[in-house]
Amino acid sequence: MGRSAPGTGQTMSMTVGVVGLGLIGGSIGLALREPSRRIIGFDVSPEACKEAQSRACVDEIAPLDAVAAADVVFVASPPVTVPEMLEQVFQLKPPETVVTDCASVKAAVMRWAETRKEPQFVGGHPMAGHERGGAKYASAWLFRGARWLLTPTRWTDAAAKARVREVVKLMGAEPVVIGVKEHDRHVATVSHLPHVLAAVLAELAKDLEHVDAAGGSWRDLTRVAGVEPELWTQILVGNSEQVARVLADTEARLADLRGALEREDRNAVREFFMSARQAKVKATR
Amino acid sequence: MGRSAPGTGQTMSMTVGVVGLGLIGGSIGLALREPSRRIIGFDVSPEACKEAQSRACVDEIAPLDAVAAADVVFVASPPVTVPEMLEQVFQLKPPETVVTDCASVKAAVMRWAETRKEPQFVGGHPMAGHERGGAKYASAWLFRGARWLLTPTRWTDAAAKARVREVVKLMGAEPVVIGVKEHDRHVATVSHLPHVLAAVLAELAKDLEHVDAAGGSWRDLTRVAGVEPELWTQILVGNSEQVARVLADTEARLADLRGALEREDRNAVREFFMSARQAKVKATR
Repeated sequence: MGRSAPGTGQTMSMTVGVVGLGLIGGSIGLALREPSRRIIGFDVSPEACKEAQSRACVDEIAPLDAVAAADVVFVASPPVTVPEMLEQVFQLKPPETVVTDCASVKAAVMRWAETRKEPQFVGGHPMAGHERGGAKYASAWLFRGARWLLTPTRWTDAAAKARVREVVKLMGAEPVVIGVKEHDRHVATVSHLPHVLAAVLAELAKDLEHVDAAGGSWRDLTRVAGVEPELWTQILVGNSEQVARVLADTEARLADLRGALEREDRNAVREFFMSARQAKVKATR
Repeated sequence: MGRSAPGTGQTMSMTVGVVGLGLIGGSIGLALREPSRRIIGFDVSPEACKEAQSRACVDEIAPLDAVAAADVVFVASPPVTVPEMLEQVFQLKPPETVVTDCASVKAAVMRWAETRKEPQFVGGHPMAGHERGGAKYASAWLFRGARWLLTPTRWTDAAAKARVREVVKLMGAEPVVIGVKEHDRHVATVSHLPHVLAAVLAELAKDLEHVDAAGGSWRDLTRVAGVEPELWTQILVGNSEQVARVLADTEARLADLRGALEREDRNAVREFFMSARQAKVKATR
């Protein structure tokens, strides 16, 4: 098991297992690869394995039982498969292996965790991504400066939690412990809603003749408009209650602003932007 | 008057007047400054003049009549002041001076132009900006690669239109001629709506404890959330009909998606993202 050698700040040898070799799994491999660590990966798709190897995301591809025997295992498979993959890993792994996942909605995963009561499991979610999926776009720097949300259960062992925190920090991310419900409420606003709005923006511009004549705001706001439909269907359906709530909130705010414009209420329009500016300043403080 | 010396591709000396020395006016000055050109600026605010001078956006600050006597004049004052500033410039200028503006909504400006029937006037709108205003953030590169929408009237002289196109190209922008109604319909979707959505996103995140734990999509989508409230009130109110239309469209799309989530209609959610992805691919082609 990898540990910091006292007084040296050096991390000793560690084996990391990565289940699911897409953008996130591939980036975990790249972010952790070092001569002192062995990264072993598994994916049900031979193409994904080949891509992860060609990008040097892993030291080797191995069967699931070998990957599950690593010191720390990251399950980074598509959201709907995560509880099943975790179950398989827990059936194969030795007792000391610490396991975490990367699902961007935690409700289903944590329902599985509640039934399992596993001291070696910690839920996780890196707040980083890319508008394109697959190990092809994996980057060793993807998690640098990003928060990595952790959702331990009441059965999670303190040492297991500390180990996941440590490995997350090795990737340059900042671990933040958060409750499951709070997590799903939070990501509905800061991640799922932005992806929905980007998609709506792209959709509305579909029939414009001069869509190429857009400025930086349009480019920024539609960067994530082309994300993988199946992945994002899983994410939104997995967090449907919270997403529906923020969609209704958004509809109400837009209808308010529309009403202000229709009755030419300049003060209400100004207030809309003033309040947003305060919120933006607060958020970036 | 600046002209290309035949066969050399060199632009000869030209005087450019800039009325309104904020982000756009300041950037026009920086983008055009060269030993062979003289940039003279005017702003009703002494602070704005001082800032533009300290950033070297202009060669000199001058009274409006001197600025109006330049070869080409850009009116880049706040949207609601543009028709009045244009009127003043036209009362002061010599016949040969070509005048354009930078208002991001063209309806009011072009109503003024319709009454004036001036052959030396061409409406304009650079599709570039910054989340912060003022000459402090002006940049010589702001317009590089950006489209610069032009709305000539039926009275616009062909030589005047050619002159504005030429100067716009000198700044690295690409001139695109567009009708007034089409312009305002277009910017409602590609510029005004993105700014509104950014503001709503920032607003909804106001009370989240972990708003700092957001990923790149949230950062991108809220970049323009803190724009200047008075400026954006003028823009939205000036284009209220078109903005109200795209807000209603957006509300309808969000309500559709919310309905699909509420009845767990995975196919409808997937279709939402697939259609957006196609739109995004089409827009970036």
